[in-house]
Amino acid sequence: MTDEDLDTAAKALDREYVFHSWLAQANLDLPVIAGGSGATVWDHAGNRMLDFSSQLVNVNIGHQHPAVVAAIQEQAGILATIGPATANLTRGRAAQRIIDRAPDGFAKVFFTNGGADANENAIRMARLHTGRDTVLSTYRSYHGNTGGAIVATGDWRRMPNQYARGHVHFFGPYLYRSEFWATTPEEESARALHHLERVIVSEGPDTIAAILLESVPGTAGILIPPPGYLAGVRALCDRYGIVLILDEVMAGFGRTGRWFAFQGYDVVPDLITFAKGVNSGYVPVGGVIISDAISATFDERVFPGGLTYSGHPLAAASIIASIDAMQNEGIVDNARRIGDEAIAPALAELAEKHALIGEVRGEGVFWAVEMVADRGTREPVAAAVIGQLKKEMSARGLVPFSADNRIHVVPPCVVTDDEVAQAMAIYDEALTAVEASG
Amino acid sequence: MTDEDLDTAAKALDREYVFHSWLAQANLDLPVIAGGSGATVWDHAGNRMLDFSSQLVNVNIGHQHPAVVAAIQEQAGILATIGPATANLTRGRAAQRIIDRAPDGFAKVFFTNGGADANENAIRMARLHTGRDTVLSTYRSYHGNTGGAIVATGDWRRMPNQYARGHVHFFGPYLYRSEFWATTPEEESARALHHLERVIVSEGPDTIAAILLESVPGTAGILIPPPGYLAGVRALCDRYGIVLILDEVMAGFGRTGRWFAFQGYDVVPDLITFAKGVNSGYVPVGGVIISDAISATFDERVFPGGLTYSGHPLAAASIIASIDAMQNEGIVDNARRIGDEAIAPALAELAEKHALIGEVRGEGVFWAVEMVADRGTREPVAAAVIGQLKKEMSARGLVPFSADNRIHVVPPCVVTDDEVAQAMAIYDEALTAVEASG
Ligand SMILES: Cc1ncc(COP(=O)(O)O)c(C=O)c1O
Ligand SMILES: Cc1ncc(COP(=O)(O)O)c(C=O)c1O
Repeated sequence: MTDEDLDTAAKALDREYVFHSWLAQANLDLPVIAGGSGATVWDHAGNRMLDFSSQLVNVNIGHQHPAVVAAIQEQAGILATIGPATANLTRGRAAQRIIDRAPDGFAKVFFTNGGADANENAIRMARLHTGRDTVLSTYRSYHGNTGGAIVATGDWRRMPNQYARGHVHFFGPYLYRSEFWATTPEEESARALHHLERVIVSEGPDTIAAILLESVPGTAGILIPPPGYLAGVRALCDRYGIVLILDEVMAGFGRTGRWFAFQGYDVVPDLITFAKGVNSGYVPVGGVIISDAISATFDERVFPGGLTYSGHPLAAASIIASIDAMQNEGIVDNARRIGDEAIAPALAELAEKHALIGEVRGEGVFWAVEMVADRGTREPVAAAVIGQLKKEMSARGLVPFSADNRIHVVPPCVVTDDEVAQAMAIYDEALTAVEASG
Repeated sequence: MTDEDLDTAAKALDREYVFHSWLAQANLDLPVIAGGSGATVWDHAGNRMLDFSSQLVNVNIGHQHPAVVAAIQEQAGILATIGPATANLTRGRAAQRIIDRAPDGFAKVFFTNGGADANENAIRMARLHTGRDTVLSTYRSYHGNTGGAIVATGDWRRMPNQYARGHVHFFGPYLYRSEFWATTPEEESARALHHLERVIVSEGPDTIAAILLESVPGTAGILIPPPGYLAGVRALCDRYGIVLILDEVMAGFGRTGRWFAFQGYDVVPDLITFAKGVNSGYVPVGGVIISDAISATFDERVFPGGLTYSGHPLAAASIIASIDAMQNEGIVDNARRIGDEAIAPALAELAEKHALIGEVRGEGVFWAVEMVADRGTREPVAAAVIGQLKKEMSARGLVPFSADNRIHVVPPCVVTDDEVAQAMAIYDEALTAVEASG
């Protein structure tokens, strides 16, 4: 087959045999991806695209990092899989790497297959640790697609899937679209905390097992927490004996320019959930980082949760290599620097120029550009505008990421200044094209 | 470090940093596994063990099958990961391989990370397809540890985790411990079907979305369905418009000596869930095989479920290689032959000799040996007896699998006659030792 034929075959097989997430299945025409390197992906014919999505905001280390690839290849040759009720050196070393990056007071790692089951197991631990049922989370959140995680999720994806009980939602801070009539970050923070405490008290503090929050809500809009908010949530948790679970699935492992996003916000949770960036998804994996106190709860008591692939050696090998490479190559630092020096000023300039942009916000390689029909009312643009923008971006060789009325600027942490400049030019042209056509 | 030091380090890291499934965490002393081949595993010091557990009954193709290892290594070098909303040739080919092995009338594959989320998504599809809520499953079942899957599960693991609604349990057939006062397989089958229909009618047929069954309940005791049972369940589903989900996570992909266990029982489900044997767990993966009718439900309607690693290329590459190797090397046939010719007669002989054995049942490389304190009353042996048996077996170089009062004989499908003979000698000696000590 020629390379073009391979692309045709990939599309044909996809249409015929593959059922896709979060989509209607008829007439899908998804882009073929055959390979990648760093912030670039390509099809079989060799058409290259700049990946400013990091796929699902998970390829933090970039595509095909050679050290991670080599580690997977080596471990595959030694021992690809082994059951969880064994001791395995690679698994132990991966857990150690993760604990070494967490704050003091974290004991152990429970490995899962991805982000959803990380949250499922964190919720389980919190409920059994506290003997309480209710889990609070925000309306603007995504926590995964399994039974409990999807009901913890606040966005529309919860709505056709509400089969778990014990979940209550509240409003988090989001100054640009404040639920609290706030006008400054400090006011938004204080009022959001007041609201949360009112929900806690109204639900009954003794019924609440956990507050589950994305440190920086990701899919919901990269909602950087305002000053004092997360520390205030911690204080409420302490006051009422509630477990604080911070979901670092999207925000963790470099995305914000820190190992964990919460490390920028003066807060230490009781449980940390992770996936995506921990190994950039090279092998499916996720997990829960467990505090000393919650870990001790299960010293003598059986933990009633588990899964066949918990602590998978291939995943573990990729975690070790990925964390080491991020450390040794300064990849987390690069994400911070590029955010401060390249992305922030460039997006500010775009916002100056294009009336479609209502707000830009973010840090590291984790930015949202909020598109509005009217800067005064902040009315979100119609879905069609985002569709059009994405088409213009794709046509210019960029893989975009969108959510609701936003374009998220979420390249790998290894992205270069040059690539950011190329992407910004594409965003600029795409905005100009859409503005001209509207 | 010497090899012994590596074993010591593996244990130390495991104790310090790794939190384990389904266990109390204090004072764990789990065996170190550093490598494997076929039906054998070993630690760093080179102590070899015969793996008659297939770990969690998932390493169907045996440890470190060279073709599957090579496929993982090759794909890792090309493209380790890519988002689900893409077309990828390796993913498409993996889905095609799976559909080719399913009966007529199956359209597409939705890939997940493991067995639990396969069941979560099958349940989601059934509910949205029927517009009904309730899911029926048996008390003697295990379907996974996530929010919905754990409540679908019937065994004790459900009990601390009952946070999902809409699940109702019933009794399946199990002649040796009949819930229906039956004395023949035919009677057990008919009465179990009567019971199921009574539950359906009593719950209200219009409320029931799905019946979720393991084709051959695995962890619950390898409960081979009696004649006509699964076909009878199919007829009830047809009569009442209920979706039949067969969970082939443990039973599928060679374990019974067939590609799918249900192919031996004159039944075709609407949804098939799989994991484990599809690639022997070399890379975490699972999925749902979807009938034409249910697939069509989501042609124009968004499927509200998904996950970051759906259709992971590394997993897909390992599926292709594993299915091809199983086909080309006659591995499924070997499982059937070895079951009929080696395991069945040897276990019958053991049962003759040892009063501890109440019943043996199974097919392929999927056998349960039921240990009883008294053959007349069929009273299960105490947990301590199973603990003792496992210790005797481990001491003789065999990795055993136990559940409740049973030893499950579940080697890889590639197990040889010689290895079966060695294992049977070990079972024999272990039984003799325990009988002598009791
Ligand atoms: C914050 C957050 N939590 C959890 C998840 C679920 O992770 P997974 O898709 O691996 O189940 C996601 C996925 O996007 C996420 O962004
Ligand atoms: C029949 C069955 N279904 C589902 C599962 C869950 O699979 P996983 O552990 O991959 O989530 C298992 C695991 O043992 C199983 O045996």
